[in-house]
Amino acid sequence: MRISELSSRSGVAIPTIKYYLREGLLHQGAQTAATRAEYDDSHLRRLRLVRALLEVGKLPVASIKTIIEAVDDEALPIHEMLGTAHYALGPTVEPEPGEEWRTARADVDALIDDLGWRIHPQAPTRDELAQTLVRMRQLGLRVDLRPYVEAARRLVAEVEMDTIPFDGPRDAAVEALVLGSVLYGKAFDALRRMAQESESARRLT
Amino acid sequence: MRISELSSRSGVAIPTIKYYLREGLLHQGAQTAATRAEYDDSHLRRLRLVRALLEVGKLPVASIKTIIEAVDDEALPIHEMLGTAHYALGPTVEPEPGEEWRTARADVDALIDDLGWRIHPQAPTRDELAQTLVRMRQLGLRVDLRPYVEAARRLVAEVEMDTIPFDGPRDAAVEALVLGSVLYGKAFDALRRMAQESESARRLT
Repeated sequence: MRISELSSRSGVAIPTIKYYLREGLLHQGAQTAATRAEYDDSHLRRLRLVRALLEVGKLPVASIKTIIEAVDDEALPIHEMLGTAHYALGPTVEPEPGEEWRTARADVDALIDDLGWRIHPQAPTRDELAQTLVRMRQLGLRVDLRPYVEAARRLVAEVEMDTIPFDGPRDAAVEALVLGSVLYGKAFDALRRMAQESESARRLT
Repeated sequence: MRISELSSRSGVAIPTIKYYLREGLLHQGAQTAATRAEYDDSHLRRLRLVRALLEVGKLPVASIKTIIEAVDDEALPIHEMLGTAHYALGPTVEPEPGEEWRTARADVDALIDDLGWRIHPQAPTRDELAQTLVRMRQLGLRVDLRPYVEAARRLVAEVEMDTIPFDGPRDAAVEALVLGSVLYGKAFDALRRMAQESESARRLT
């Protein structure tokens, strides 16, 4: 298809498509004449992925480039490819100096070991959870993560992983991971605040 | 206590305390001389609450003022007081024109009715969830919210509501709601992404 059809079928404006081509977020089409290129379904899929990363994942262009490189590197196993997108979706947390941090981080590592979860030793989620633990303890919150662990485990194993097409095109798997992770996260957030309101009404009114 | 002691016991710098006094976020102390005022535990509690709203809730000063007014209005029932903080913690979502939005919003209302949840007809969480539903459907995600509903219900009823001291000072109840809601939300987010990584490793490697 020509760029005009790629634009109308993807819903992405032609100048934006040209910007993605220049930035390397979208691979070049097959050149059929000096000023004409031919695009195919792989370009449509890639545009869907780029939009998911930009609009739903709210990721900066530099992170998107890294993810696209991982998608295009066919030698990279799917699990590692998904990891690049996955790690980009979380906040960046810097370890803090001091005993409180070291204790919290050791508790996170021990929790992961106890659960038998397979998490990379350098996964950023370890520091992310450690930071939240530090804040909770500083503020005097009673901390019991077990119900949250169990809820996360069940939702991921029983719902979210089944929405990812592991045996299709690599773009589609990353796209599904990002959409599922972000949008189910938002839905859960709203539902949790609804449950808080309802439970407060039940107990207090 | 004098303002210097209030500062050292709360960890809030004196100029910041003076700013809170000017902005009406902190109530005035008892004037004991032209340039001297006496503060008490109610000021310490209020400073804890303001910091929780600012630093953990990341709320703007205008929202914090509204919440403080609700805390100070003793005629306002606790459930409504908590609601002002609660609604401020969520994103502001504008309803969109069109059939997709109306359908999603009707589905949210029907879900709440089915669950028997006690949610205010104008609660912003209704539009928040509707917006996420619209996005999920536009992007072709298979949507099954029931496991998320069940997880939210259990975590709130079995863990989060029990951390709120309903029978103590009003400041303390709002503070506990904000800290619990935000920090348990962050912890769950990190745990969910950990569970995704672990499940991906289990299935793919």
